[in-house]
Amino acid sequence: MQNDILMRGRAVLAQNVLAPEVLAQDLNADNPSTALLVERLTALDPSDAAAALLVLPRRRAVAVCDRPELLTAAEVFAALPRQEAAAFLADMSADRATDVLGTLAAPLRNELLARIEPRTRATLKQLLAYPVDTAGGIMTTEFVALPETTTVAGALAHIRTVEQSRETIYAIYVVDGEQRLTAAITLRRLIAADPSATIISLSAGRPPVVVRSDTDRETVAATIRRHDLLAVPVVNDAGHILGIVTVDDVLDAIIAETTEDVHKFGGLETFSEPYLQIGFLSMIRKRAGWLCALFLSEMLTASAMQHFEAELERAIVLTLFIPLIMSSGGNSGSQATSLLIRALALGQVRLRDWWRVVLREMPAGLTLGIILGTIGIARISIWQGLGLYDYGPHWMLIATTVGAGLIGIVTFGSMAGAMLPFILQRLGFDPASASAPFVATLVDVTGLIIYFSVATVILSGTLL
Amino acid sequence: MQNDILMRGRAVLAQNVLAPEVLAQDLNADNPSTALLVERLTALDPSDAAAALLVLPRRRAVAVCDRPELLTAAEVFAALPRQEAAAFLADMSADRATDVLGTLAAPLRNELLARIEPRTRATLKQLLAYPVDTAGGIMTTEFVALPETTTVAGALAHIRTVEQSRETIYAIYVVDGEQRLTAAITLRRLIAADPSATIISLSAGRPPVVVRSDTDRETVAATIRRHDLLAVPVVNDAGHILGIVTVDDVLDAIIAETTEDVHKFGGLETFSEPYLQIGFLSMIRKRAGWLCALFLSEMLTASAMQHFEAELERAIVLTLFIPLIMSSGGNSGSQATSLLIRALALGQVRLRDWWRVVLREMPAGLTLGIILGTIGIARISIWQGLGLYDYGPHWMLIATTVGAGLIGIVTFGSMAGAMLPFILQRLGFDPASASAPFVATLVDVTGLIIYFSVATVILSGTLL
Repeated sequence: MQNDILMRGRAVLAQNVLAPEVLAQDLNADNPSTALLVERLTALDPSDAAAALLVLPRRRAVAVCDRPELLTAAEVFAALPRQEAAAFLADMSADRATDVLGTLAAPLRNELLARIEPRTRATLKQLLAYPVDTAGGIMTTEFVALPETTTVAGALAHIRTVEQSRETIYAIYVVDGEQRLTAAITLRRLIAADPSATIISLSAGRPPVVVRSDTDRETVAATIRRHDLLAVPVVNDAGHILGIVTVDDVLDAIIAETTEDVHKFGGLETFSEPYLQIGFLSMIRKRAGWLCALFLSEMLTASAMQHFEAELERAIVLTLFIPLIMSSGGNSGSQATSLLIRALALGQVRLRDWWRVVLREMPAGLTLGIILGTIGIARISIWQGLGLYDYGPHWMLIATTVGAGLIGIVTFGSMAGAMLPFILQRLGFDPASASAPFVATLVDVTGLIIYFSVATVILSGTLL
Repeated sequence: MQNDILMRGRAVLAQNVLAPEVLAQDLNADNPSTALLVERLTALDPSDAAAALLVLPRRRAVAVCDRPELLTAAEVFAALPRQEAAAFLADMSADRATDVLGTLAAPLRNELLARIEPRTRATLKQLLAYPVDTAGGIMTTEFVALPETTTVAGALAHIRTVEQSRETIYAIYVVDGEQRLTAAITLRRLIAADPSATIISLSAGRPPVVVRSDTDRETVAATIRRHDLLAVPVVNDAGHILGIVTVDDVLDAIIAETTEDVHKFGGLETFSEPYLQIGFLSMIRKRAGWLCALFLSEMLTASAMQHFEAELERAIVLTLFIPLIMSSGGNSGSQATSLLIRALALGQVRLRDWWRVVLREMPAGLTLGIILGTIGIARISIWQGLGLYDYGPHWMLIATTVGAGLIGIVTFGSMAGAMLPFILQRLGFDPASASAPFVATLVDVTGLIIYFSVATVILSGTLL
């Protein structure tokens, strides 16, 4: 059977993947063929991809498994012979092995863990315990740590021997006698330094930048960006280094966060799977939740309309502009929300700045409302003037109602859209949960009330 | 006068910024105090920040100017004495100096450039010519390039001498006799290698991963992520290396792209300035454009309503559900759009997959429509049953109309929302231009027509 799978693997490689001379090449971190290989294998049936992995040169097969772009990793590992799957996991970087294990069914995960040697198994089990959106969930344990008294020459010699098994060697972590992190030295600094100096003498004298294992991955990304780091150490309360998060993991984390934010803003629970691989039921579940919640809230519009039924019957012409007016409120609201979500995410605006935001959005909303109101009045006047439609003898009053309604609704929409992310953040939610549909729904009900109230004032005694 | 500004700088530093013992510390790339200093200076009045820069230790002042987080850089440079401003620019990394120059008014930019020594000036002028959202616009020219025949020991010796003036030394670029890029070697590989070997012998034998100067920054980011690089070289048609884009610049570019995408999805032109620094007129201009375009399109709803005026007058009860039905179409559309925008951006779905997307969205939309339709029918039946509102003798037909209308509109909304990003990409636009308000507007007009058509069929002979 083992022979069968190897023959199949050879056939798969020969037909689908890459020329043998490319595969035989020395593996290099930035060898472009690895990324290509990952893409080809992802597109294959998982059992074919598993067979191919078995016949690839060992280091290259591990390099392929190490890439998060191997989207079918869970299926591929399920299709591999157990012993081989465990061996790959043990050789992969600990953070990626953890991610793969996390996507496997619990019985298979435990079976594979049992086949891994105890020390690696302990590391993986520990990493599996951290939530995926925290520093602990994206960190790896393969870093270079050395005692303070190591010389520069000694450090370089050590780095040469461990280079292959470390995620990065560009940051070297210095620990004291109690294994507490005291400094982070870059390789740049190390190779430019006097070989006989101790590594601790290269430190800036200030505590290094660190994060905790429960730090949110967005904060980790912001920390790495803020200090232009290639990796940030993760420490516990005692100051011991638990692992490191490298910049490439942060890049992946930022992409995942962006997807999450766009999905939330579109008004649905986020999906981590690629679109075409989302199961039908999961798709319905994650969309129906918000859609129903919004639908139930939007039912208030029907109640509001029922409340103004008398006005509606007397001036049916008012209904013609309901969709136009409501959508303008929703649109101006979603503009303001998208502006403030990003401003809050980037730290350009803080919770205490809400009042300054009000002072900006109020005049902006008013100005935008006046612009749309003017267009609305012009539309009614032109249609009436050209005889395209007859709004009746009171068409000027109707135009005034529509114009004034637009000013009120666009101002309210801008204010409500801008404040919603603040309110959510204040209540402890992610401000990015303020979706465009959520804002639109919020503004719709109020918009109708504003419109009919304006109509009652302007048209009372004539149409109403 | 020069003395005045120095005294003021000292006063500013003493009052606002950091303790003198921190400022006197040796500068280190990951010294946390630099990031803090940048934040403090950004919050100051630009002329105070400029004065402070003049009294800071030279290397630290340059390090501060080098940070993109110094958001007020344009104002600070305008407030600096000309000669000092030019000197800072010459010492900053070329990519950051270019960014700062790009934000200055043209007369000041030219004056400062004229004071920079000719070679650096030529580099900066060349970099200024590239659009900001391309590889050329974010690359720097401070990289390490060496001839193929250099030995490993020679390369390491060279790196030690140039280390301080290079943006990264973790990637070493190998050029042939005609200065064409032939390989990229990582520092990891170099320090682990035999010192007497030539650097070209360390190459994987395949051409290195490269981008062109006009490559979109999103593609540059995807390339760096795909190959887990710390930097990617930018080459011209002849294969000469023009510069490099480092991973920290890519991180900044991704954040900028995310902001752009969220702003677009919210239905406005993007802003690069922080929210509180956007000028009022610029704010109105960038929001009013889309708002007016959407308003004009949404006017079609008024036309559609006018078309169905006879039906409206006979069955005013139908108007009660217009906002509810329209918003459901818009919400399901913006869900589908946000899903597909990300799927396209991440390459999970390609243009040719549109048909597979239709086959997923059609049943999903139908199912979601049935769920909302059922809730809608239940709402009318319960209100009628409990006597909360009287929808008249034909209330069951009205409930059926609302339910059937919802199924049609939610299905159409999901399909339209999913297809819009494809259509935009096919027409050569960014699929992320498919904003939530845009989708809602598209669905609103069609939604009204669907609703009234369903009503005509179901209610004809009774209410209509």
